[in-house]
Amino acid sequence: MPGNSFGTIFTVTTFGESHGPALGCVVDGCPAGIPLSTQDIARELRRRRPGGGGPATSRAEADEPELLSGVFEARTLGTPIAIIVRNTNQRSTDYDALRDVYRPGHADWAWEAKYGVRDHRGGGRSSGRETLSRVAAGAVAKRFLSEYGVTVRAWTSAAAGIQVIRPEDPGFSLEEAEANPLMVPHRESAERIMERIETLRAQNDSAGGIVSCSVMGLPPGLGEPVFGKLDARLAAAMLSLGAAKGIEFGAGFAAASGTGSSRNDCPVPKDAARLSPAVPALRYQTNNAGGILGGISTGMPLEFKVAFKPVPSISKPQQTTDRQGAIRELIIQGRHDVCIVPRAVPVVEAMTALVLTDLLLLHRCDTQIRIST
Amino acid sequence: MPGNSFGTIFTVTTFGESHGPALGCVVDGCPAGIPLSTQDIARELRRRRPGGGGPATSRAEADEPELLSGVFEARTLGTPIAIIVRNTNQRSTDYDALRDVYRPGHADWAWEAKYGVRDHRGGGRSSGRETLSRVAAGAVAKRFLSEYGVTVRAWTSAAAGIQVIRPEDPGFSLEEAEANPLMVPHRESAERIMERIETLRAQNDSAGGIVSCSVMGLPPGLGEPVFGKLDARLAAAMLSLGAAKGIEFGAGFAAASGTGSSRNDCPVPKDAARLSPAVPALRYQTNNAGGILGGISTGMPLEFKVAFKPVPSISKPQQTTDRQGAIRELIIQGRHDVCIVPRAVPVVEAMTALVLTDLLLLHRCDTQIRIST
Amino acid sequence: MPGNSFGTIFTVTTFGESHGPALGCVVDGCPAGIPLSTQDIARELRRRRPGGGGPATSRAEADEPELLSGVFEARTLGTPIAIIVRNTNQRSTDYDALRDVYRPGHADWAWEAKYGVRDHRGGGRSSGRETLSRVAAGAVAKRFLSEYGVTVRAWTSAAAGIQVIRPEDPGFSLEEAEANPLMVPHRESAERIMERIETLRAQNDSAGGIVSCSVMGLPPGLGEPVFGKLDARLAAAMLSLGAAKGIEFGAGFAAASGTGSSRNDCPVPKDAARLSPAVPALRYQTNNAGGILGGISTGMPLEFKVAFKPVPSISKPQQTTDRQGAIRELIIQGRHDVCIVPRAVPVVEAMTALVLTDLLLLHRCDTQIRIST
Amino acid sequence: MPGNSFGTIFTVTTFGESHGPALGCVVDGCPAGIPLSTQDIARELRRRRPGGGGPATSRAEADEPELLSGVFEARTLGTPIAIIVRNTNQRSTDYDALRDVYRPGHADWAWEAKYGVRDHRGGGRSSGRETLSRVAAGAVAKRFLSEYGVTVRAWTSAAAGIQVIRPEDPGFSLEEAEANPLMVPHRESAERIMERIETLRAQNDSAGGIVSCSVMGLPPGLGEPVFGKLDARLAAAMLSLGAAKGIEFGAGFAAASGTGSSRNDCPVPKDAARLSPAVPALRYQTNNAGGILGGISTGMPLEFKVAFKPVPSISKPQQTTDRQGAIRELIIQGRHDVCIVPRAVPVVEAMTALVLTDLLLLHRCDTQIRIST
Repeated sequence: MPGNSFGTIFTVTTFGESHGPALGCVVDGCPAGIPLSTQDIARELRRRRPGGGGPATSRAEADEPELLSGVFEARTLGTPIAIIVRNTNQRSTDYDALRDVYRPGHADWAWEAKYGVRDHRGGGRSSGRETLSRVAAGAVAKRFLSEYGVTVRAWTSAAAGIQVIRPEDPGFSLEEAEANPLMVPHRESAERIMERIETLRAQNDSAGGIVSCSVMGLPPGLGEPVFGKLDARLAAAMLSLGAAKGIEFGAGFAAASGTGSSRNDCPVPKDAARLSPAVPALRYQTNNAGGILGGISTGMPLEFKVAFKPVPSISKPQQTTDRQGAIRELIIQGRHDVCIVPRAVPVVEAMTALVLTDLLLLHRCDTQIRIST
Repeated sequence: MPGNSFGTIFTVTTFGESHGPALGCVVDGCPAGIPLSTQDIARELRRRRPGGGGPATSRAEADEPELLSGVFEARTLGTPIAIIVRNTNQRSTDYDALRDVYRPGHADWAWEAKYGVRDHRGGGRSSGRETLSRVAAGAVAKRFLSEYGVTVRAWTSAAAGIQVIRPEDPGFSLEEAEANPLMVPHRESAERIMERIETLRAQNDSAGGIVSCSVMGLPPGLGEPVFGKLDARLAAAMLSLGAAKGIEFGAGFAAASGTGSSRNDCPVPKDAARLSPAVPALRYQTNNAGGILGGISTGMPLEFKVAFKPVPSISKPQQTTDRQGAIRELIIQGRHDVCIVPRAVPVVEAMTALVLTDLLLLHRCDTQIRIST
Repeated sequence: MPGNSFGTIFTVTTFGESHGPALGCVVDGCPAGIPLSTQDIARELRRRRPGGGGPATSRAEADEPELLSGVFEARTLGTPIAIIVRNTNQRSTDYDALRDVYRPGHADWAWEAKYGVRDHRGGGRSSGRETLSRVAAGAVAKRFLSEYGVTVRAWTSAAAGIQVIRPEDPGFSLEEAEANPLMVPHRESAERIMERIETLRAQNDSAGGIVSCSVMGLPPGLGEPVFGKLDARLAAAMLSLGAAKGIEFGAGFAAASGTGSSRNDCPVPKDAARLSPAVPALRYQTNNAGGILGGISTGMPLEFKVAFKPVPSISKPQQTTDRQGAIRELIIQGRHDVCIVPRAVPVVEAMTALVLTDLLLLHRCDTQIRIST
Repeated sequence: MPGNSFGTIFTVTTFGESHGPALGCVVDGCPAGIPLSTQDIARELRRRRPGGGGPATSRAEADEPELLSGVFEARTLGTPIAIIVRNTNQRSTDYDALRDVYRPGHADWAWEAKYGVRDHRGGGRSSGRETLSRVAAGAVAKRFLSEYGVTVRAWTSAAAGIQVIRPEDPGFSLEEAEANPLMVPHRESAERIMERIETLRAQNDSAGGIVSCSVMGLPPGLGEPVFGKLDARLAAAMLSLGAAKGIEFGAGFAAASGTGSSRNDCPVPKDAARLSPAVPALRYQTNNAGGILGGISTGMPLEFKVAFKPVPSISKPQQTTDRQGAIRELIIQGRHDVCIVPRAVPVVEAMTALVLTDLLLLHRCDTQIRIST
C-alpha cells in the first residue's frame, strides 16, 4: 500500500492538504451494526482544536465533519465510511513568502527532494492539520472499542521542559486534563507550563514535550507476531506523526539499564474464569512491560510515551536557504502553535484506537477460531 | 498481511520455531541482476552468533544458510529468494520443565492467551532465535544497498547500565566494535561492560542496553508520508524485536525539552549539482532531526537508538504461575544470554537494511517518474 | 486490505452508497507532476452516464466531480487525490417496497447474510452506481497512461444476444462506438441491438452482453508473477464488476479446444533497437495470447472480453421471498437499465487503466533497476 | 505485496525454480489448533504428479514434502507453515539448447523483457512445476476447510477438443475422475480423450481443455465487496495459472445472451433456522449465478470453469527467434505433457481452497462481529 493508508483489515486512508478544499478519510473494514453519528466525530475534532488563550495557533476552523457514506439509519453498514472536513479559514497569502524558501525544521526541502513539487501553503500535506483526518477516523475506532469496554486515554506528561506528576502520584486527574487547554492532568503543573509557554511566546520561540497514553480494558492476545506486534504497530502509528521523535513502552529506555531480576513482571493467578480449559487467567504483579510481552497484549494496562520535538515554526530570525540555493534570513509570519503537545493528545488517542481496533479484529479471525463452532 | 511478512514491494516473510526443523525467510521483490551468494548471508549470520566467552548463550549452532531459490549463476533472478537454516543443536529436553509454567518477562502466557497452544521448547517462535531469519533477509538487502553506496552500521552504545562514548568522542571506533564480542566501539568501555556482565552472571542475573544505528550515503527523498514515513517504518521494524522497549531518532526524547530555536536544523547550500532544475542541493548545519524531516530522509546521516530490556531468562528463583493457575517457584535452567544487546546489533542493521531497500524501491516508482523519459 | 481498495502502489479506495450523500474515491500513489483537472474526470463520467433514449436508466444525475486534494496548480502533488460526486437525484421512496423483500438476481439477501444490515435504497453499495467511483479513479490512471502513449479502448461486442462485427472485419469503427449510445462500433449492429432492446423493454425484460477491450502501446514486461500476473490482475478487476460473469484473454475459451501447433504465437524479429544489450526486440506473428505470456505483457495488443449477465431488475412479475421468510410476488418499479453493457464500457476501461498504471509503476521499481545509475 | 504472495490474512508465499534446489511455500495466518501432517500435503502432491501412461510428462519426481515450521505435536501453532520439496530429477542439460532461444507460446522472451535475465532450465519460475507450491499450500487450506464441512472438487470437463458429460447427466462420477489419470468423471469420455491425446502425441502436438470446479458446503456471506468479491478473488487465483486463458461463473458467457427473466435465480424459503433474528434462511430455485451474487456467496454450490490453452512445448518444428534477434527453427526436446489439464485439476482445487479459507476468515472478523458477545 502507498503511504496514506494504515491498517490491515480495519484500515484508514487519509487525504487533504492544509489549504486545499478539504481534508478527510475513508475508514474501511468497520464491522456493520456499530452506532455512529456525525456527533461522535465532531466531539473528537473539537478536542483537537486550539484552545482559547492556550498555547495554540489562532487559526480558527469550524472543522465540521460531514459523513458521506457507510452509515444508514445511525448504524454502520460494513461499507467504507467517508468523512470530510472543509477548509474554510485558510489565509493562504500568509504563505506567499515561503514559496521559494525552505523553513528550518520543516519537511519543505525533503518534500521537494522527493516529489519535485510542493504545496507551500501551510505546509500542504506535511502540515499538522493533516492529523484532523486521523482524529476523524479514530473517532470511528473509539466508537467500536467502546462496545468492547476498551478505553484509550492520553495526556500531556511533559511540556516546555516541565515534567507533570505521574498517574501514581497524588493529585493526578484525567478530568483535570480535559478541563485545561494544555491537557495536563494536574492544575499546578498546567499553570507552570502555561507560564513557561508565555515566556517562550514572548521570545518568539517554541517548545516540545511528551504525551503519555494508557489503555484500560484491553483483552490479552492482541498483536500479530513477529512483524505486526502490538508495540511495533503502535510505534509505527506514533512515529508517523510529524513532530514525534521517540516512543517507549512501559519502563522503556530506563529498562535498558536495569537487571532481569528487577524488571521481570511476575505472573500471579487472577480471580477470574479460565480463558479456556487449557489456559488460566493471570495478571502480573508489576507492569514494567507496559502491558505487552512478545508483542502481544497481556491484559495489563497498555502504557507508552511519545516524545515531540519543539514546534519548528518560530518568529525568531533564522538562517536558511532558498530555491536558488542562496542563503536567506527567514522570519516566519502567520499563526503557529508555541507548543503542539496538547493538540497531539487526541491524535495519539486516535492512532492508538486505530491500531487496537485493527488488532482486535485480526485477533478474532487469525487465532481464535473454535473449530467446533 | 498476517504478522510474518514485512515490507511493501521488497518484502520478507519469515518462519521457524527455535526447536523446529529449520528457520528461514523468503525475500520477494528483490530486483534481478544483483550479485548474491550463500557467503553474503553466512557472513551476516556469523556476526549474530554468540561470541566465545562473551556474554551470550552457549548454544552453538553452525547456522549454515542454504539458498533454495531466486539466484541463478550468482545473480538474483527477480524471483523469490528462499533461505533456510537447519536447527541442529537443540536440546529440547532442557525445556520440559517449562511446558506447564509461564516464565516471568516472557511471552509464554500471552502467546497461549492468543493462540491457545504454544511450542514451549526454547520459546518456540517467540525465541530470539527467530531473528536469524531477519539477519538472513537483511543480508540480501545489504547486498542491494551496497550497490547504491548506502552503509548501515550499528553498535552497542550502552549495556549493563554502562554508557559507551559517542561517535563524536575521541577513541570511538567501529572497527573496534567488530573486534570485541560486545560490539562496543571503544576498548575500555567494552572491558568495563564485560566485567559488569560477569558479575551479573555470577549473580544469576541479566542486563539490557542500547543499540545505536547510523546510516551513511542515504539519498534524500526516502519515506512514504503520511503513514509510511521513514521513521514510522523504522520504528515498526525495531519494536518488532522481542526485547525492544523504545526507539528515538536524532535528539529524540531530549529534544522534547528543548526549544525550537535550539533544535531546528538550518539548511545551507551544498557544493553539489542541483537535484533537479527546480530543487537545489542542500545539507543541514546540525542533525537534531537524525536525518529525517516530515518522515522523509534529508540526505544527512540517519541516526537512531533502540532500547532493549534485560534478558528475562535468569537462574535466580522467581515466583510465577503454572497452567493450573497455581503459584510456583521457578529457576530457569538451560543456555541463556546474560546480555542480548551485542547480538541485537546485526539484527538492528538487518531490519534497517530491509526498511531502506523497500523505501528506496518505492521512491523510484512512486515519485521519481520523469514523464518525458 | 479490506474490500474497497485496489492496487499495490497505485491504489484506489472507493466509497459511497447509491442513495447516500455522495460517492467517491481516493487515488493514492499517483506520481507527482501529472497534469490533472476536474475536466479530465468529468469527461469520463459523462461517458458513463445513461444515453438519451438509449437502453439505460432514466435517473438523470449531473455527476459533477469535485477534486478535494492532491492537485496544486493543475498538477498532481504525489499526495492522495480525493474525488467526490454528490448524489442529487435520488428518489429513495421508489425503493420503500424493497426494504423487506429480496430481489431475484440481486445481492440483497447475500448482503444481509454477510452484514446483517442493508441499505435497500437503490441497492446501496451493491448498486451499479458504485462504478462511478471507479470511472473517476480510472480517469486519473488514463491521464497517467496517456503520458506513456498507452491507449485503453473498450466497446460493446455483443448485446441482447446479437454479436457485433470484430475489429478485423470491414466497417468496424471505434469512432462509431463513441457516436451511438450503445457503444457499438458498427452502425447497423447498433440499430439491430437497439431494436431488440426496445422489444425487451416492451416485454418488461432485460438483456446482457459482452464488452471487448483492447490496449495499444503497452510495453513488454508488465505483470508480477506468479500471483500478480497481468491477466490475474485484470481478471480480478473485471470480475469485481457487479454483473460480470466471465472473462477470456486472446483466443480464450476457444483456445482450449485447439492444439499447440495451431495456437502458439511465433516470435519474429522487430525492426527496433534492442530492449537491452542482452535482449532483442521481438513481435509475434499472431496474437492468440492476447498480448500476455506467462502473465507478462508481450508488447502485442492486450485483448480480452468480459461477459455481463442480463440486468436483474425487471418489471415482470417474479416469485421471491421476504424478510419473514414468506414467498412473495414481486414487480420491480423504478428506473432501470434494460441493458447495462454500454455503460460498462467506460468502467471496463477505467479498471483496465487502474491495473496497467499500477503494474507500470511496479515494473519500474521491481525489476528495471539499473544498478550503475 | 510483490507478486509471489496471495491472500489477505490467510496468505501463501511461494518460491522456487523448476531446476533450482527446491520449491516451496510459506502459509501464514493459519489459525492455531488445526490438525496437520506431512501426509495431508503428500496426498495432494501425489494427485498433481503425472499419471503412469497418461498424458503427462515423464519427469518422475518423488515430490516428498518437508514441513519445516508451524506445526507442533500434529497441530498448527498459528505461526507460519513452511513446506519445501526438493528437486531431485532435473535433467538440466536437456535445456542447454534453449538458453539463447525463445520458445513460441512460452514466457521466455517476456520474462527477459521484464527481468533482463532468465533461468532457462525448464522454464525456471515460469514452469508449470511452480504449481507444486500452490498444491502444498492448498493442502493446508483444504485441511482447514474440512473442519467447516466445505468440500472443493474439480475435474476435467473438456480436453483435446472433447466435451465431457455434465454433473446433471447420468453417468457423471467424481469417483471415476479420481480413478483415471485424466481426471475425467466419465469412463467413456476418458477413453475418447486418451485416444485423441495419443494421436496428438504421435503428431508431436498438444492439447488444451477445461477444468470445472464445484464447492459444496460453503456458507453464505463470503466475499469482500467491492474489489475483494468472491468471483474477483477466484478469477485472480485461476488466471494466475500459467496456461489459463479464461474463467466463467455459473451460466458464464452463455448468460450474456440470455434475458433477465430467464436468468434470474428466484429465492425460496429454506427449511432451516433463520440466519439471525433479522435474516431468514433461503435457497435459490436455480443457480445461474454459480453460487455468487454481488460478489458474495449465496450458500448455493459455487460453480466455475477455467479454460487452459494447449501445452506450448511441442516437438514439431516451429519458427522462432534467438537472443541475437535471428530467426531460428526450433524442435523442442525433453519431457513434456501433451495435455496439462488433468494435472491442473488439483491446482484449481488448491487455489480455490486458498481463496475460500482467506475469505472465510475475513468474513469472521470483518462483518460477523456480535458486539454483545
